[in-house]
Order: sequence, then C-alpha cells, then structure tokens
Amino acid sequence: MFDEMEKKVSRREVITGAGKLAVGAAGIALVSGVGTKLLSKAEAKETPLPWPYEKLDPNEVAELAYTEWYKLYCGAAVISSIFTPLKKKIGEPYASFPVDSFIWMHGGVVGWGTMCGTETGAALVANLIAGQGVFKDGERISNEVIQWYCDTDLPIYVPKKPKITAEIPKSKSGSPLCHVSVGKWMKIADKGFWTPERKDRCARLTANIAAHTVKLLNDWKDGKFKSDLKLPAMSYAITAQHDCTDCHGTKVPEVNTKGNPAK
Amino acid sequence: MFDEMEKKVSRREVITGAGKLAVGAAGIALVSGVGTKLLSKAEAKETPLPWPYEKLDPNEVAELAYTEWYKLYCGAAVISSIFTPLKKKIGEPYASFPVDSFIWMHGGVVGWGTMCGTETGAALVANLIAGQGVFKDGERISNEVIQWYCDTDLPIYVPKKPKITAEIPKSKSGSPLCHVSVGKWMKIADKGFWTPERKDRCARLTANIAAHTVKLLNDWKDGKFKSDLKLPAMSYAITAQHDCTDCHGTKVPEVNTKGNPAK
Repeated sequence: MFDEMEKKVSRREVITGAGKLAVGAAGIALVSGVGTKLLSKAEAKETPLPWPYEKLDPNEVAELAYTEWYKLYCGAAVISSIFTPLKKKIGEPYASFPVDSFIWMHGGVVGWGTMCGTETGAALVANLIAGQGVFKDGERISNEVIQWYCDTDLPIYVPKKPKITAEIPKSKSGSPLCHVSVGKWMKIADKGFWTPERKDRCARLTANIAAHTVKLLNDWKDGKFKSDLKLPAMSYAITAQHDCTDCHGTKVPEVNTKGNPAK
Repeated sequence: MFDEMEKKVSRREVITGAGKLAVGAAGIALVSGVGTKLLSKAEAKETPLPWPYEKLDPNEVAELAYTEWYKLYCGAAVISSIFTPLKKKIGEPYASFPVDSFIWMHGGVVGWGTMCGTETGAALVANLIAGQGVFKDGERISNEVIQWYCDTDLPIYVPKKPKITAEIPKSKSGSPLCHVSVGKWMKIADKGFWTPERKDRCARLTANIAAHTVKLLNDWKDGKFKSDLKLPAMSYAITAQHDCTDCHGTKVPEVNTKGNPAK
C-alpha cells in the first residue's frame, strides 16, 4: 500500500520546464512593464515538489526562530525561520507561502497539547523540501527531528538578546507531545504555564528544533543524510510514540494484530 | 500576550488592491499571449490572509475526501477535498497550494500517533480561510472540529463506492490522538492496524471530518458561526486534551501554577 501510494502522489508534480525558479501560474499575473493579464483557472498550475533548497546557517535560523516565537509561536516560527532566509536566497515559492496562517500549530494544535508545534513546523518544512511520502527523505528527516526532540535535554540555545536573562532549566520530554514536554519542564523549573520563563523556554526550544532541522536539511543537500530510525507505526502495529509507559504506566495493553498480513 | 500577538501578525497581510482574486506575484509569471517576464524577488508578495471562500457541498467534499485518503492519507485528503473544489470555483491561491506535501500529517504526524491528521488538515484549512491567530475564527472552528472528533461515534459516512462493503464499526475516541482513536476502534472492531477494514475506517472518518469542517465554514460564511467552546490551554493552566484520565488514570497530577498572573 505504501509503495503504491508513493507512485500515485507524483501525479501532480508538474514540471514546468523553467528550472529552479519555476512556480505555479497565479490567478492574476503582475508583470511590471507589460501590463496585467488574467490567467484562466485552467492555466493555473501547482508549484512542482519538492521545493528548491540552499544550505542555511543553523545559528542564524535559531536566532530568527527565537524572535519569531514571540510573534507566531512555535510551529509558524520554525517555518518562518527557515523560509525567510530561503525567500531572500531563492524567492518563490517561499515568498508567497502563507507562513502566518500556521499559528494554529501552537500548544500542540490550538492548545490541545498534542504534537509540539516545533515538530509539526519542521515536518512541513522537511516534506516540502526533501520530498513527501511515506519512507521518503522529508518524512525521515521529520522522524529524526521528533526523536531528537524526545531524547534531548532542551532548551540548549541561549539567545543573543534573551527576554529572560536568568538561566532557563532544561528537561527531556521523552515524548513528542506538547503537554508532556511542557509539563515535565514546569515540574523541573517549578514554574506555571503562563510565566515569562515558560514562554522563553518554548522560544529557545523552537530555536533548537529549527536549527536541528536545518542541520539535517544541509546534510541532505550534501548527500550525507542517512536514517535507519524506524517510523513508529512500523514497530508497534499501531501509530505510537516510543515510550508506551509514559501514558500506560507499566500495564501496556497488548496490541490487536488480528487480520494483519503475515510479516 | 495573546492580544499583543494578534496585532503583530497583521504585518504581512498585504492588501494588493485587486480584490478577491489578488494573489502574490510569482517568481516567474506565465502570461499566455504576451510572453514571459521574470519578476524580481523584491516584487514577490505573500498572498493576503485570509483566503477567499465560497460555500461548498459537504456531501461532495466527503466523497472526495474518502477517495483521496487512498492516495494522500488523512490530513492531505481533508485539505485536498476542500481545496480541489475551491480551486475550481476560485482558482488561486488554491491552485498552487502544495497539497501533496502534507502527506506527513498521516498517523498523527508521520506515524507517531499524536493529533489525528484529519484534525491538523482541518486546522490548516480553517486558519487559512477564517483567519489565523489565537481566539480568531479559524482557531475556533479548528477547536470545534477537534471537540466533535472526540465526542462523536465515527465513522458515520458511507461512501458511494466503498472499498469495503461490510459494515464498518463505529467508535468514540474521547481524545484527539490518532493512537487512542485508532486503538479504541481496533478493540471494538477486533481488527489489526494493517487491515483493509482499519484503512477504510480511517478513510470514512476523513470524509466525516472534511464534511464537518465545511459545514462550519459554510455557517461562518453566512455569519452564523458561534463558538463558546474554551480552548483547552485556557481551562487547565497547561495545554491539554479534556479527558485527563485517558492517560493519567484516576491519579491526575496537580498542575503547577507558580508564577502565573492572578486571574
């Protein structure tokens, strides 16, 4: 099923023949010097996937992600910190991408505490740039970013001009969930959710995830990205995070595998 | 902080003065009949937010979402089922939106079992169309869709040409998480994750969420959308889903509120 799907998704990967800068035609084309002409809907085309990439400086991306958090929160800040320099280097399709519309990634999707917005933001970026589809590089980079988020004491990043000058404690989430990650940090730091310290912790963590995503994308651009990390759904016969006990305690229920094809 | 942020995000909402069809200029403008002219990077502009909307038929959206699931999975199928008819009705900016790149929403973000892709897909759509930002209509619609996902016995939708002709059992997730939602269904249906029945359950559920999102967007377009449903982070002093016991059992830990501003 996965292989079959991977073939199908190429159906819309329209090659316009105009190379790296080729983009989908717009409903109205604004052409300076030659007037304005409407394009018919039939002429409108999707931007070819994957999108062009040039290597970025992870430190510059981190600093931008930190400051953008205070305007856009975690997910959109990761996207903005990577797409803003790409917009300067490459222009379209980054210039017209609606970055601000992704504020909804905050707080694990509009505050529901699920996947931390930094990881959804990184997934969006990686899959646009390194190729979409199950097992493809975009997904593998996303998988690696999530694993790193779970395994690392964060935040590591110290901003050039921090909003909070006191040291911000680090914590390891062990989980991709905003609720778990923030909750564990609140316990270690002994601070509530609505404090300036918690906000700065999330802004710094956003910087770390943006920089780590760029590091992996730079490796990928150089042909050096490799990943043997299994996608969780392939390991547990159900979609899952790796630490079952985090929610289930020691009594992890058995997964129903009835009807699954033989391995 | 929320109010402050809402003001700031309008900074990129560029009004091009060309009304509903106005879109960001593209790196290359393809203008039939008058040749092709490159635009400088400086001329490239972001599409104004929010994006234009015309009311859609929820039944047609549902059927398309069902069939698209088998190509794009849950999240991208929700987006495709709504943006494909909008592309026909309106053209840009929907025509050049990279729908296929959102396959990563599957399985609660690349199979990690967090927020079900139908809800992330719905959030993307609602926030592009009904306005982005905390407390704004896009976020409120997204919040309502997630709550409906948690509270409803799904899937309800019966496709015109079902891949599985046998009845598909319904289940109530009580949670926005793919892992919990799919896990509860697998228990009730007594079927494994890799079975055709589980896949068809997810395809039908995708149809339901896409149709429900369109129903709310149609109400919003008519000025009839109202929501008093609190965003979870405002209720629990931490980002969260509503059913604490689903992961914590009966021993729900007390939330640290130290340093939070007085209510």
